Amino acid sequence: MTPAGLHYLLIHYDIPVVDPAGWRLAVTGRVDHELSLSLDDLRARPAVTTAVTLECAGNGRAQLSPRPLSQPWLFEAVGTAEWTGTPLRGLLEDAGIGAGAVEVAFRGLDRGIEGDEEQLYERSLPLAEALGDHVLLAYEMNGAPLPPQHGFPLRLVVPGWYGMASVKWLERISVLDSPFGGYQQARGYRVRQTPDEDGEPVSRIVPRSLIIPPGVPDFATRARTLADGPCVVRGRAWSGLAPVERVEVSADGGETWGDARLGPQASRWAWRSWEWDWEPPGPGTYELCSRATDDAGNTQPLEAPWNLGGYANNEVHRVEVAVA
Amino acid sequence: MTPAGLHYLLIHYDIPVVDPAGWRLAVTGRVDHELSLSLDDLRARPAVTTAVTLECAGNGRAQLSPRPLSQPWLFEAVGTAEWTGTPLRGLLEDAGIGAGAVEVAFRGLDRGIEGDEEQLYERSLPLAEALGDHVLLAYEMNGAPLPPQHGFPLRLVVPGWYGMASVKWLERISVLDSPFGGYQQARGYRVRQTPDEDGEPVSRIVPRSLIIPPGVPDFATRARTLADGPCVVRGRAWSGLAPVERVEVSADGGETWGDARLGPQASRWAWRSWEWDWEPPGPGTYELCSRATDDAGNTQPLEAPWNLGGYANNEVHRVEVAVA
Repeated sequence: MTPAGLHYLLIHYDIPVVDPAGWRLAVTGRVDHELSLSLDDLRARPAVTTAVTLECAGNGRAQLSPRPLSQPWLFEAVGTAEWTGTPLRGLLEDAGIGAGAVEVAFRGLDRGIEGDEEQLYERSLPLAEALGDHVLLAYEMNGAPLPPQHGFPLRLVVPGWYGMASVKWLERISVLDSPFGGYQQARGYRVRQTPDEDGEPVSRIVPRSLIIPPGVPDFATRARTLADGPCVVRGRAWSGLAPVERVEVSADGGETWGDARLGPQASRWAWRSWEWDWEPPGPGTYELCSRATDDAGNTQPLEAPWNLGGYANNEVHRVEVAVA
Repeated sequence: MTPAGLHYLLIHYDIPVVDPAGWRLAVTGRVDHELSLSLDDLRARPAVTTAVTLECAGNGRAQLSPRPLSQPWLFEAVGTAEWTGTPLRGLLEDAGIGAGAVEVAFRGLDRGIEGDEEQLYERSLPLAEALGDHVLLAYEMNGAPLPPQHGFPLRLVVPGWYGMASVKWLERISVLDSPFGGYQQARGYRVRQTPDEDGEPVSRIVPRSLIIPPGVPDFATRARTLADGPCVVRGRAWSGLAPVERVEVSADGGETWGDARLGPQASRWAWRSWEWDWEPPGPGTYELCSRATDDAGNTQPLEAPWNLGGYANNEVHRVEVAVA
């Protein structure tokens, strides 16, 4: 599990300051009964705790050239926490989904300007996804109330999807009879080559793995140095499309690969640990690589194809190590 | 108080993974009795909780030109937490300070390469500072065990000093009969104009204030827009040299200033809140500025003098706001 403070954050605007006593969640739109719930109302509902890996759709975009606009993540925009809350499905069933409903939109309290529009951050899910068993309205992270920066008092957690779907500081859930056309859905978070294309919406997390860099870092360059001798290379792997079934590791920049041992998973939606025994042939510089494959056959490319937002980049992770 | 996850971090190397069951703190060097303490031993000693503002010595260096090497902080490298632990002084008294002692060195478990030397992060304090009443060996932050990234299981907290003094992942305290000559003391954290100078060591936090930017941000540019009408401008101010006694605010880029109302402080070592009533004269662009002065007469300069590390920069904070 990733503690708060080591879990990545992508916050479009400011962190809202929310007084939980005055806060309510509205459920509105194409429903049989509109609902308005306090935090206590939500806490009184059935509670579930699930370990979920969240990854920013732009994770890795700082490696792309030309560099896409927005947070210049190298590889760090991923984390796994235990989220506790109540299933969204139950709440939607209590409200009663009306005839003609196709999507559910989720609006946060974070306000700002994007694409020249002042807006509250808002994203939708197709109705079938919103009714999935694993989607949570979460009020705890790692057993403690949500920290302000993770969406206090309530956030959505959509396992398997890139983080943009897991709306924080939730204030309104709207059942819609036509596709949501808000900025974050129609303009933001779409895979496109030029600003004029409609593009394809970003959705589920494609397979990825990361290596825990072995050895010690140089402060300024972050170059890694490792003492000669046997070494266990460790890392994590995840996919929102299907369970990870294989992780391969290379110590020669991707020329030859060996299979890593896979560790347990805290849940279907959490990353999986892996390890691989390596005995460097002697002093020198080595490029370690890792590549995850899920059981639907999706795997990591050697090089990520570029797109304007740098989204869904899952190229093989490479770590250079000097063995001395 | 700043929750973990919103509190800044400057971590030179990697975050050490520490098994608390096997961990011990050594007290050694010019002492009458060497000590070796477990975490339980430390928790059994007298406990103190103090709110302390920690600021990185390089906070603000991204604003300087040419840009100093290291973490490119704008203004965010500051936070205030409640630290719980046992006073260092009592432990040093139990060990017995030997004749000729002049400094106390603190070594962490974080290992890396800096200035071409492999090292564990280590810093010293003059003996009189180490014996100060407020220096803590802290094992809790904001009422919870230290998170890994804040120094679990034990860290030093030196109120009033820039953060480099508050060594994390502490493993050894050495009482020295000559000044400590390690990298972080003799080479790092010194105010100099060229790499060849000895320079002056960085020590206490000079006065500084920050404005909470009013209005809402633009996602990409972070430019702020504020609705026309009366507004309360709020912020924080702190100084490690003496208590903050005055905060001035300007809405015209520093031409004219008014006094802010000062709020309470959680402790002498914590930042102080302030607020200032502002009625913009109408739509337009305004530059808000804040300037703190402490009761030893230290104040913030309009422009920070440059130095190689970008240390102890405390120039007036400026926030441009478009009133629409």
